[in-house]
Amino acid sequence: MTNVFRSEPVASTPPAATLVIFGASGDLTRRKLVPALWDLSTGGHLGALAIVGCARSDISDQSFRASLREGVEAHARSAVDEESWARFASRIHYFQLGGYDDAESYPRLRERLEAVRSEHNLPAHRLFYLSTPPSAFAPIAARLDAAGLTPPSEEPFARVVVEKPFGTDLASARDLNVKLQQVLEERQIYRIDHYLGKETVQNLLVFRFANGLFEPLWNGRYVDHVQITGAETLGVEGRGGYFDHSGILRDMVQNHLFQILALVGMEPPSNFGADAVRSEKTKVLDALRPVTAENIRERVVRGQYAAGSVLGTDVPGYVEEDGVDPSSVTETFVALELFIDNWRWSGVPFYLRSGKRMPKKVTEIAVFFKPAPHRLFGGPPPPNALRIRIQPDEGISLQLGSKVPGQGIEVAPVNMEFRYASSFGVPAAEAYERLLLDALSGDGTLFTRGDEVEASWRFITPIHEAWRELRVPSELYPAGDWGPDASQSLLARGGRRWRQP
Amino acid sequence: MTNVFRSEPVASTPPAATLVIFGASGDLTRRKLVPALWDLSTGGHLGALAIVGCARSDISDQSFRASLREGVEAHARSAVDEESWARFASRIHYFQLGGYDDAESYPRLRERLEAVRSEHNLPAHRLFYLSTPPSAFAPIAARLDAAGLTPPSEEPFARVVVEKPFGTDLASARDLNVKLQQVLEERQIYRIDHYLGKETVQNLLVFRFANGLFEPLWNGRYVDHVQITGAETLGVEGRGGYFDHSGILRDMVQNHLFQILALVGMEPPSNFGADAVRSEKTKVLDALRPVTAENIRERVVRGQYAAGSVLGTDVPGYVEEDGVDPSSVTETFVALELFIDNWRWSGVPFYLRSGKRMPKKVTEIAVFFKPAPHRLFGGPPPPNALRIRIQPDEGISLQLGSKVPGQGIEVAPVNMEFRYASSFGVPAAEAYERLLLDALSGDGTLFTRGDEVEASWRFITPIHEAWRELRVPSELYPAGDWGPDASQSLLARGGRRWRQP
Repeated sequence: MTNVFRSEPVASTPPAATLVIFGASGDLTRRKLVPALWDLSTGGHLGALAIVGCARSDISDQSFRASLREGVEAHARSAVDEESWARFASRIHYFQLGGYDDAESYPRLRERLEAVRSEHNLPAHRLFYLSTPPSAFAPIAARLDAAGLTPPSEEPFARVVVEKPFGTDLASARDLNVKLQQVLEERQIYRIDHYLGKETVQNLLVFRFANGLFEPLWNGRYVDHVQITGAETLGVEGRGGYFDHSGILRDMVQNHLFQILALVGMEPPSNFGADAVRSEKTKVLDALRPVTAENIRERVVRGQYAAGSVLGTDVPGYVEEDGVDPSSVTETFVALELFIDNWRWSGVPFYLRSGKRMPKKVTEIAVFFKPAPHRLFGGPPPPNALRIRIQPDEGISLQLGSKVPGQGIEVAPVNMEFRYASSFGVPAAEAYERLLLDALSGDGTLFTRGDEVEASWRFITPIHEAWRELRVPSELYPAGDWGPDASQSLLARGGRRWRQP
Repeated sequence: MTNVFRSEPVASTPPAATLVIFGASGDLTRRKLVPALWDLSTGGHLGALAIVGCARSDISDQSFRASLREGVEAHARSAVDEESWARFASRIHYFQLGGYDDAESYPRLRERLEAVRSEHNLPAHRLFYLSTPPSAFAPIAARLDAAGLTPPSEEPFARVVVEKPFGTDLASARDLNVKLQQVLEERQIYRIDHYLGKETVQNLLVFRFANGLFEPLWNGRYVDHVQITGAETLGVEGRGGYFDHSGILRDMVQNHLFQILALVGMEPPSNFGADAVRSEKTKVLDALRPVTAENIRERVVRGQYAAGSVLGTDVPGYVEEDGVDPSSVTETFVALELFIDNWRWSGVPFYLRSGKRMPKKVTEIAVFFKPAPHRLFGGPPPPNALRIRIQPDEGISLQLGSKVPGQGIEVAPVNMEFRYASSFGVPAAEAYERLLLDALSGDGTLFTRGDEVEASWRFITPIHEAWRELRVPSELYPAGDWGPDASQSLLARGGRRWRQP
């Protein structure tokens, strides 16, 4: 790898600021957020930063710091040494809220933030990170506004990061958008989809738009169809109560897989700024052909795992899991046939599938190209397919037809491979590192915009409605299988089949 | 690698026949032809075959066989065991010619071939292989005709394989074509270019035309330029006397590199038959923009190696080699800027270079694509380049821009790789195996047609004429270097540079 063609790295660190985490006693803070901040800090990517954790527990700065240190030691990439930790921890504080909607708490919080700012000699920039139950997002935003903590200024800035899920259907997402937008400018709102923080998801944009090679082929003239798979080996893992009200269409497809779909399908933006990129993504979601009660049985497969065996271990069926209604029809697998009804993609099916208790944990995109228009070498040539693997073993491979060595001309499929990890000597950064840094820097490109979230719900909610109305059951599949048979039939109808990842 | 998409292999073996080798006491017979026949035979690819070697030496069948056995043991891929060798050798015979142009020898040869045929109970199919000095090609063909040995029938067939070089300029190639075509149908003539027997050269056609992916990009709209390199580390190795009258433009470019150029540049043929493929190749050569005395200094670089060091060994300069005129200006390096003036390639430069005493033995094609039309990620993106390596380490690699792991969006070049040897468990067959088998089977696709050879000389000969007229010297380069500086300047003029293979 030479340095010659490298484009400029982003050199500067974000401005000094205070990060205020709501839900600071939760798992995400200890396992993801603070370890990411530690790694960013160790890597020299952060400016001066104070961290103020807010929650209802009554704990001291000291015990908050101690608990975070355990999290960092267990989950960060960089090792912890006493001196650096002491410096890092001295900027961590804890603030006890009476409750997320407790009016009295916020003026006190404001005072505390002023004190912290003064103690560490920081500017008034503030990033509020809402790692709370979704029901608290709107109340917190309203209280922050009332306390004058989120002025729309850029100097100092006040930004609010909102964790997932952002709504559970179109109405609730709209309602949340309205409530947030009553007290915040859209540009102050950073809706997290941690898939967008993954290196390989961002690399999708680079592959498509930094190279002249793909774009001419990236349309219905040359692409036969696209497959997007997001598979987990896990079941509901103690989250049965939550998941049973959600289902995988909400939990994985509406957010993560739709983000990938949008990045695969979007037009080239005019620049890599937040609005240009998000407008193009929203256009893709807006152009999705709706699923209706009339066609839902042809275009959507709903599945649920029965008892089976995953990676060699026997596991119970979904309805036997803790917290799950034994008569539940909630889907743990879904497969969809989608069409992006625009000039570029007219007639090209996009197949998405996501499931729990699959044989393999994998997220990948496979773009299948049409065969050569004329057969020169006998039988059907192997299809050309570009596979982009998001996780694990991030990389790209291109399947081509090649001559088999020997007499005659025999054509067999071969792969050209690029592996992310072995091509670059450095490990990929964690998604939260990227996203925290971008939010501190004011770059919203990798966060979802309000209209984009609504566009995805506008497509998804009618599916939930039709399932309810028509009482569509989930077809059972044995845990450890790639979903119910109907998933294969969805593609077989068009003479296609799922790639085995 | 699955079998599912394999197109049909050519299953049948060629018809039983007699192979008559002229120049049978020469190196090619012992080192290439008979080892290739042995490997074909061992692999079960041959039908019944008798081999009759013809030359002027007075040797017995026994000593001819013994000499060939040494060659097979040294150069064939398959090991020799007594039993198989005995069976193979029993069909090898030797016939002493009075001379290639000796009228009296040929009726005797005919009688001998009849006897061999009868001894081995073979049909009358005959393949004559002219591995002699080029001056003997036409006389042998005339004598064979006079003796009634090359009737134009297909049952039995009579074919003539002609080794290189085929002419030394346009006039001599035309003259040879006329003389051969006076006594043979064009379809009976098999002009060898052993580069066409190489797996990876044939694979070029498969890659281009069995895949739907490349053809849309394979034109002046997306291709910036093409580089073809044929480099040797050797000098003239005792062939100084021959080479000094030839030069590398004749020795490598007119034949091998132009064949590669034609395969890279050709339109998709309507079928993989000999005439469809060769007509398309000829069209490419016919469309080459002529080099004239006016533009030769801009478009052609002529070089000659001086003393230097190759692969760590000091070597003398060209003019110090045995058999070379000390005042010789013969080129051991040439670089050309070519244009294929047709719809597909208008304005796309094809750069060819070939040299002796280069730093590395390599034959490769590099197709450089135009950059993405719009820069989204800062500085200039790495160019997309598809490199097809013919030898050594046959394979294909595609250079792409990828995101560097870490913060920001930094783009760096990475490679997707396909290696022929590791993808298929079997070694590539030797070029002569393929070519002998095709000639026995009557498939002329991988042999050059008369008009094709003339088209290449029609382009090359004016360069030799202009060099002579203008007394163009060869610019010296140190042995072990990639040619004279002017070679880099040839590309630098257009803001380009040679890839370092």
